[in-house]
Amino acid sequence: MKDQVAVIGVGCTKFGDRFERSYEELITDAAFDAYADAGIDSSEIEAAYLGTYLPGAGGGKAAVSLGDALRLYDRPITRVENYCATGTDAFRNGCLAVAAGVADVVLVLGAEKLKDRGGRGIPRLGHPLLARGNTAPGLFALAANRYMHTFGLGRETLAKVAVKNHHNGALNDKAHLRMEVTAEQVLKAPIIAWPFGLFDCCPTTDGAAAAIICRADPARRYKKDPVFVKGVGLAVTTGRPYFDPTFDYLGFRSTQAAARQAYAMAGVGPRDIDFAEVHDCFTWTEISNTEDLGFCAKGEGGRLVEEGRTALDGDIPVNPSGGLKSFGHPIGASGVRMIYECVTQLRGEAGARQVKQAELGLAHNVGGPGAVSCVVVLGRG
Amino acid sequence: MKDQVAVIGVGCTKFGDRFERSYEELITDAAFDAYADAGIDSSEIEAAYLGTYLPGAGGGKAAVSLGDALRLYDRPITRVENYCATGTDAFRNGCLAVAAGVADVVLVLGAEKLKDRGGRGIPRLGHPLLARGNTAPGLFALAANRYMHTFGLGRETLAKVAVKNHHNGALNDKAHLRMEVTAEQVLKAPIIAWPFGLFDCCPTTDGAAAAIICRADPARRYKKDPVFVKGVGLAVTTGRPYFDPTFDYLGFRSTQAAARQAYAMAGVGPRDIDFAEVHDCFTWTEISNTEDLGFCAKGEGGRLVEEGRTALDGDIPVNPSGGLKSFGHPIGASGVRMIYECVTQLRGEAGARQVKQAELGLAHNVGGPGAVSCVVVLGRG
Repeated sequence: MKDQVAVIGVGCTKFGDRFERSYEELITDAAFDAYADAGIDSSEIEAAYLGTYLPGAGGGKAAVSLGDALRLYDRPITRVENYCATGTDAFRNGCLAVAAGVADVVLVLGAEKLKDRGGRGIPRLGHPLLARGNTAPGLFALAANRYMHTFGLGRETLAKVAVKNHHNGALNDKAHLRMEVTAEQVLKAPIIAWPFGLFDCCPTTDGAAAAIICRADPARRYKKDPVFVKGVGLAVTTGRPYFDPTFDYLGFRSTQAAARQAYAMAGVGPRDIDFAEVHDCFTWTEISNTEDLGFCAKGEGGRLVEEGRTALDGDIPVNPSGGLKSFGHPIGASGVRMIYECVTQLRGEAGARQVKQAELGLAHNVGGPGAVSCVVVLGRG
Repeated sequence: MKDQVAVIGVGCTKFGDRFERSYEELITDAAFDAYADAGIDSSEIEAAYLGTYLPGAGGGKAAVSLGDALRLYDRPITRVENYCATGTDAFRNGCLAVAAGVADVVLVLGAEKLKDRGGRGIPRLGHPLLARGNTAPGLFALAANRYMHTFGLGRETLAKVAVKNHHNGALNDKAHLRMEVTAEQVLKAPIIAWPFGLFDCCPTTDGAAAAIICRADPARRYKKDPVFVKGVGLAVTTGRPYFDPTFDYLGFRSTQAAARQAYAMAGVGPRDIDFAEVHDCFTWTEISNTEDLGFCAKGEGGRLVEEGRTALDGDIPVNPSGGLKSFGHPIGASGVRMIYECVTQLRGEAGARQVKQAELGLAHNVGGPGAVSCVVVLGRG
């Protein structure tokens, strides 16, 4: 599928507390942003994929929500759900539809409205044995503690991820938490689930993002310099990783497998990637993910951030957008928002947060925790 | 995509009150049935699609449920949800993955466990104006009443659909309601939502069904006489059809659009179809759907069933399996179960319910009501 699909337009809403915009309005904002970017009319959209994790009350958020918001009638619209990898997997399936030849121009849209839901924003996970601490921070913290014990990492190293991503997000006018934080602020913040303090956790966010993709051959009709999909990968492992006796609590096998697939399709290795949008739902998750994606060896992710190598001017900038940490994490939207960032960087249009020599970018989601990962490699020319 | 994808194995559980089998066990039963049919081992499955409508409590039913039930790890699994068209749309997306060339052998599995959920089995739909009667029977009944008024149909004609489909289902040992009913029984049953009595409504059912698909060229390595995917179509219209001023309450535009797509891809017309599995959530729905699929003109669907033309020995047998009416309707499973029936018929392996000259079959789901439809055309050789 390498180079068969091109991204000709991207769009993104301001992420944040968007109480003033409905789910459908966020969809419309992101889609029309992408239409304008691609220079197309909605009548040219032949099929669409909606990435949304949480159905609304009464099962409301479905393919028909996208159809109604955009008046995209009589066309195929599929809703994809895959935990926190929902957005990237929606994009992946949109690419498959283009590559299969059933639609030339496809809209992929990720949207989620979490702030209206109060405590039900990120639901408690299923297993009764985890009934008390089974929140996302609680579950990721189990692995983070083991990892930090094994590799001798302190909370100070985690804090550096927060400082870096907030710095990047502060340069980004669409980010939810658009502010710098200091290491001291991060370390002194209230503890949510040890070792995660408030600033180690991504916020609960509303937002939507869109990408318009098409077959590679006619792509230059729409955009002089389109971005091409080089590789995609998706891997599911057990939904109960903490009950898997082979789980070492040091990283996620699903990310390793999804990355292998995407690199193989793209014909590249992790050292060829110029920058990456990496799933940093918690500061530790970014550190572990950079290892699982192959940017460094297992246990060396802490040093990568400490040495500034993942900073905007480092040799492998990670989350130039601000990441989930600062940009926010509306679940189904996040993956498509990463595609938006990668395309913006690859075009050289990222302004103050532009990374240098952006020829090959990577977007990565992980959910579950660790149960499912999706990786997309995008490149120019 | 025509003829690029072949079905090499199908499987189906007994549908019904399956309190003794978990969701994961139903998945396993259907998948291993399909593995045996295709003569393959699960290690040959390169990717999977799960069609499931209702997430469990805590968001439980996701791609990882399929992965865990079948130990299909490190591979791509996507959950597709599209109201009552979930099953056929999961199949459609599985076909796109094969046609795109990213996976040679793909498992498509539809599963749903409705009986454990009590009154929450089929959730109330969203709009507050419909807060009282907004059940599936209540909403479909609105259209049925208008249709019957316009075309002068009586409940006696609807009853003939129930009698026919129960007759077919009684021949099918996997059907949920495996019993004949008389027109008198249907007409005298308690009214659920006028004009629908109890026997005009499909039951609430547990079940799972599976299909294994692969690229057409190596298909004969697995099966001497594989079935080929001739055409697929999916169309979404408004999620609030009853608030759409252009809606005439006489049929569903989404079915008409999805059928057009599928016929165009297959290069056939409705008169070329030898038999069809048609979404008969209510008796009236089958009548209207046979028109929307083009088997007869609008308003003539009643005569089609009255004249016995949709019976097993008619010229266009509809729901030889027993349909949702008798076979049951576990939402995400139903579409894949229709693929199972089409393949079984096309192979000439349907036993007592075998239709004659089965060269081209069609599977059709509609959900919403009317908001989304998916059509698949399957054929031999």
